[in-house]
Amino acid sequence: MWHQRRIRLSPQPRGFHLVTREVERAVPELGELRVGLAHLHILHTSASLTLNENASPDVRRDFASWFDHAVPEDAPFWTHTTEGPDDMPAHVKASVLGPSLTLPVRDGGFALGTWQGIYLCEHRDNGGARSLLVTLCGEG
Amino acid sequence: MWHQRRIRLSPQPRGFHLVTREVERAVPELGELRVGLAHLHILHTSASLTLNENASPDVRRDFASWFDHAVPEDAPFWTHTTEGPDDMPAHVKASVLGPSLTLPVRDGGFALGTWQGIYLCEHRDNGGARSLLVTLCGEG
Amino acid sequence: MWHQRRIRLSPQPRGFHLVTREVERAVPELGELRVGLAHLHILHTSASLTLNENASPDVRRDFASWFDHAVPEDAPFWTHTTEGPDDMPAHVKASVLGPSLTLPVRDGGFALGTWQGIYLCEHRDNGGARSLLVTLCGEG
Repeated sequence: MWHQRRIRLSPQPRGFHLVTREVERAVPELGELRVGLAHLHILHTSASLTLNENASPDVRRDFASWFDHAVPEDAPFWTHTTEGPDDMPAHVKASVLGPSLTLPVRDGGFALGTWQGIYLCEHRDNGGARSLLVTLCGEG
Repeated sequence: MWHQRRIRLSPQPRGFHLVTREVERAVPELGELRVGLAHLHILHTSASLTLNENASPDVRRDFASWFDHAVPEDAPFWTHTTEGPDDMPAHVKASVLGPSLTLPVRDGGFALGTWQGIYLCEHRDNGGARSLLVTLCGEG
Repeated sequence: MWHQRRIRLSPQPRGFHLVTREVERAVPELGELRVGLAHLHILHTSASLTLNENASPDVRRDFASWFDHAVPEDAPFWTHTTEGPDDMPAHVKASVLGPSLTLPVRDGGFALGTWQGIYLCEHRDNGGARSLLVTLCGEG
């Protein structure tokens, strides 16, 4: 059983945002799968997806601090600077975290750990709405 | 053909640990697949999975050194500090390496490169036993 | 419907290289899938795959600069040094970016964002030809 659906996430400011419920609600076909996999693919090169702690907002703030520190806007070696100082760091952060997540599916929902939530990692100052292509496969 | 099984890995000290055999032994259904994919998903936010060199223990020690250097416990910007100095770095390292691995399957086993082994990346000082949800799909 | 094929990418110098067309041409079975997933797995521990901007060569050059800066050859903590100064940094970079990509497939091709291209990330000075194991699944 295969389903594929393009979804649009609400625009977010630069930072890390918990979007588990927003993604679940956008993919009602998930409910038909007893066991399977869900592939979430972001169709952009300056935003990414990851899983991490779904409780404290400070974890998401500290993610932003670490990434801004590790991939600084003012590094002397950037040459691709025409799209603004946040552009090239956004590309690097996007690849360090990766463009997609594959999640196990069980009994009609994502089978995540107790503390795991889906983060939309918005690396641009004004990234706008981001699109995901979600592919589900499994058995009903 | 779909199989899904929750497995438990032995507790490991902080660091990088080769667990290829431990995972293979815990998923006997792998032997039924002629061609397919194996999705290994860690159900935690402070440990992760990766593939890397399966021979020299110094590679795994150097991984620990680099990650401790790149994501230091004493960075001035951490605000999520109530769970200990190793907690927030563990969350960041977990996302940099990622919570899951998708591996090709061929003739009843993981189809890895000669030097590739599965690493359990334990980022906490006392992480305890870690659980994986393994999803196999393919044809027999 | 399952297909699995081992392909060989041309040798590349150290750096980040756009290989979308090279991969597509090597996997003609992609054309048979209406909807599905393509799993690209690199069979090495010192090279990796990612998706990023497919237009400006400066983006790829800046990737190399950032990774060389973040994972330096002359770090005092490396102990696995017998295979040359580029070896241990190559292992770390390979895991930070990851050994595989799972891509959505639609209407016989990779369903990527407008600006997304597949990068071969060659982390060794002389890595030689790199092999991928490509696994396709989906419905026709």
